[in-house]
Amino acid sequence: MSDDRYYEEVDVGEQWQTDGRTVTEADVVNYAGVSGDFHPYHVDAEFAGASEFGSRIAHGLLVLSIAAALESTENEHAFMYGFESMRFVNPTMLGDTIHVEVEVTDKSVKSDAYGVVTKHFDVRNQDDETVLACDKLELFERSDAA
Amino acid sequence: MSDDRYYEEVDVGEQWQTDGRTVTEADVVNYAGVSGDFHPYHVDAEFAGASEFGSRIAHGLLVLSIAAALESTENEHAFMYGFESMRFVNPTMLGDTIHVEVEVTDKSVKSDAYGVVTKHFDVRNQDDETVLACDKLELFERSDAA
Amino acid sequence: MSDDRYYEEVDVGEQWQTDGRTVTEADVVNYAGVSGDFHPYHVDAEFAGASEFGSRIAHGLLVLSIAAALESTENEHAFMYGFESMRFVNPTMLGDTIHVEVEVTDKSVKSDAYGVVTKHFDVRNQDDETVLACDKLELFERSDAA
Amino acid sequence: MSDDRYYEEVDVGEQWQTDGRTVTEADVVNYAGVSGDFHPYHVDAEFAGASEFGSRIAHGLLVLSIAAALESTENEHAFMYGFESMRFVNPTMLGDTIHVEVEVTDKSVKSDAYGVVTKHFDVRNQDDETVLACDKLELFERSDAA
Amino acid sequence: MSDDRYYEEVDVGEQWQTDGRTVTEADVVNYAGVSGDFHPYHVDAEFAGASEFGSRIAHGLLVLSIAAALESTENEHAFMYGFESMRFVNPTMLGDTIHVEVEVTDKSVKSDAYGVVTKHFDVRNQDDETVLACDKLELFERSDAA
Amino acid sequence: MSDDRYYEEVDVGEQWQTDGRTVTEADVVNYAGVSGDFHPYHVDAEFAGASEFGSRIAHGLLVLSIAAALESTENEHAFMYGFESMRFVNPTMLGDTIHVEVEVTDKSVKSDAYGVVTKHFDVRNQDDETVLACDKLELFERSDAA
Repeated sequence: MSDDRYYEEVDVGEQWQTDGRTVTEADVVNYAGVSGDFHPYHVDAEFAGASEFGSRIAHGLLVLSIAAALESTENEHAFMYGFESMRFVNPTMLGDTIHVEVEVTDKSVKSDAYGVVTKHFDVRNQDDETVLACDKLELFERSDAA
Repeated sequence: MSDDRYYEEVDVGEQWQTDGRTVTEADVVNYAGVSGDFHPYHVDAEFAGASEFGSRIAHGLLVLSIAAALESTENEHAFMYGFESMRFVNPTMLGDTIHVEVEVTDKSVKSDAYGVVTKHFDVRNQDDETVLACDKLELFERSDAA
Repeated sequence: MSDDRYYEEVDVGEQWQTDGRTVTEADVVNYAGVSGDFHPYHVDAEFAGASEFGSRIAHGLLVLSIAAALESTENEHAFMYGFESMRFVNPTMLGDTIHVEVEVTDKSVKSDAYGVVTKHFDVRNQDDETVLACDKLELFERSDAA
Repeated sequence: MSDDRYYEEVDVGEQWQTDGRTVTEADVVNYAGVSGDFHPYHVDAEFAGASEFGSRIAHGLLVLSIAAALESTENEHAFMYGFESMRFVNPTMLGDTIHVEVEVTDKSVKSDAYGVVTKHFDVRNQDDETVLACDKLELFERSDAA
Repeated sequence: MSDDRYYEEVDVGEQWQTDGRTVTEADVVNYAGVSGDFHPYHVDAEFAGASEFGSRIAHGLLVLSIAAALESTENEHAFMYGFESMRFVNPTMLGDTIHVEVEVTDKSVKSDAYGVVTKHFDVRNQDDETVLACDKLELFERSDAA
Repeated sequence: MSDDRYYEEVDVGEQWQTDGRTVTEADVVNYAGVSGDFHPYHVDAEFAGASEFGSRIAHGLLVLSIAAALESTENEHAFMYGFESMRFVNPTMLGDTIHVEVEVTDKSVKSDAYGVVTKHFDVRNQDDETVLACDKLELFERSDAA
């Protein structure tokens, strides 16, 4: 999705929903391989099956990675700045399908050139349970600075 | 690294340094493929070469993913709970080598069963520049609850 | 890019240009692994270096795969139907950056429900040389059938 | 399979059948990652489950990529030249096993040095349904030119 | 696991057990892609289903690769030297979970600087069947040489 | 390469040379991800650059995996049985191109149904240095048992 807006053009209160994506066994295996995180909760079905989760779970940061990509837009006037208040609320099991409910919850001028836009991410699974919540902070160029 | 300590056994002020890992072109390509984030800053050398960065940069969440895996330990009494104050301070270029300077900066009892341990991550590159800073929150079991 | 148009809403003569993507050594290695095509022109630097190309070249169908993904839109009223007149005109070397010049060149009603839209793909590298040309045929729903 | 024949040594009417390969969920996930095509029909089980297909389907160009690799031979006298009449006839579901029925259907001299050999691909699944049909054009060196 | 011991500090008779890891369909697909081994026993469910194994089996060298990684430690005084007596005893099916029973079975001085330590690997699945047995030889620095 | 011979049809003294393959940075990154072996010698350019090797080296078992795949044939009468005398003789650096010099060095009847064929692998790089030597043991069906 292309979205080339400046800081002034984004409004607090905007809401939208992203496409969904299924977090497959292959995604978990591939993310283990990219990150290097082979914790038994993710790659050992016997161990995970005997745990409180009952089966393997996806890496929390895989869920974040997919959620951030689902929400990402091509905006040459905006850059990822950081995250706040990130909480892994419920596990994502292999085969769950997640999407992101996004809301612009805050804006604040940071400098003559930039403003910070806060997007709240409510990452939900196919049962409409929140699995991950966080606030993504993006730096937007101010139009009068451009 | 195995580290099976309970909440009471972790002390504020502990510090250590992880192994390093080089963030290669292949890692960036693979992370694009796992996450689905094919932003031109990461996968288009012509676009990125003409940008303020001068060449392709690694995804911020790839840097986080590698940093978290470098720091991860197998502790059956601890679970990732969330992140706070995450800031992407400097870009990581293809070929940079990162490691994490970790410090336990806070502890607080959360319930009869759990306490929260805060680890500050200072992710640094081969030139000792900070590229990513964040606080990782982990839930540790309390030993008297066990 | 979202583009939910029906057959009637697409016009012969429309033209646009996609984002670019660099075809890296990692892409060629990964495509060999996905497809199973480990021909020495793609994975043996000694063999390819002694060939008429002078170095390894990307798989033609990797170039097609990337081109098609760069052009793909999310349109629930359209489906890939086929390709015609596909020619691999010039090799793509590792590190080349490609994009697609797209033009709608033909439309024809196929049934009460569908029409065929022909998009000509001119896949070009960073030196503006055509490396792949083809006609992609898509089935579009007719709006009066919907 | 090694097959070092010149143009003159290939006969119209030759037929053979390739090995088979199962198109797994992991293949679809990996191809999405290599190509960059994360359309919901391929990676969102909820969306695809509610569609006319009833579940996720493989990318058409993944089917083509696997088919072409199954058929590929190491012939230093032959090069991929293009494709004609490519049609995606039926969807390939995750777990389907495909192979290619190949037939040499045409030959034509192109220059003093080269001739074009046309191989018809009939890509079939485990239920002997055609999922993809196309004509692959290869340039073969002429033996008297060698 | 960090284990920075010298040759003299390792004792014949030491035994331990590694973590486990499930050998998934995605691992087999990915290993086929990395190695280039697309034998139908591993990637063709129809062929493998009709074979004496009844379904696809993991590559023997994937089982070895995972076993060796499960056992690997970071010891700057030790290096992989070779393997002896490697036998693939039983097939590993997709979804099986393996771990390694390790025992130091031999030590011998090789030079003033190095000694050879032999570790016997008994790779077992979730049913406690041995699937792979081998002797891994490692070169350890002698402490008096350091 | 298809090679459907029985035990009796293989002769001690046969020799051949496989195709080559370049062991790229992407292969090393991908093998780390598949195996789970992220030792700093393979993935940390700073650490490896300061080591006796001077730069990152490929995993020994990646070299074995590629070598075995280069040599593999589709023979329904033969199965991998094991390895003997495997020695990692020289490191393989990123970008080196390897191939295998194969020789049948031994045959012995094992049972009424099977015989063991020993193939010596001399894995060499582009400078004709041996990097890995081993004996691969294969079980071949005896033709009179078939």
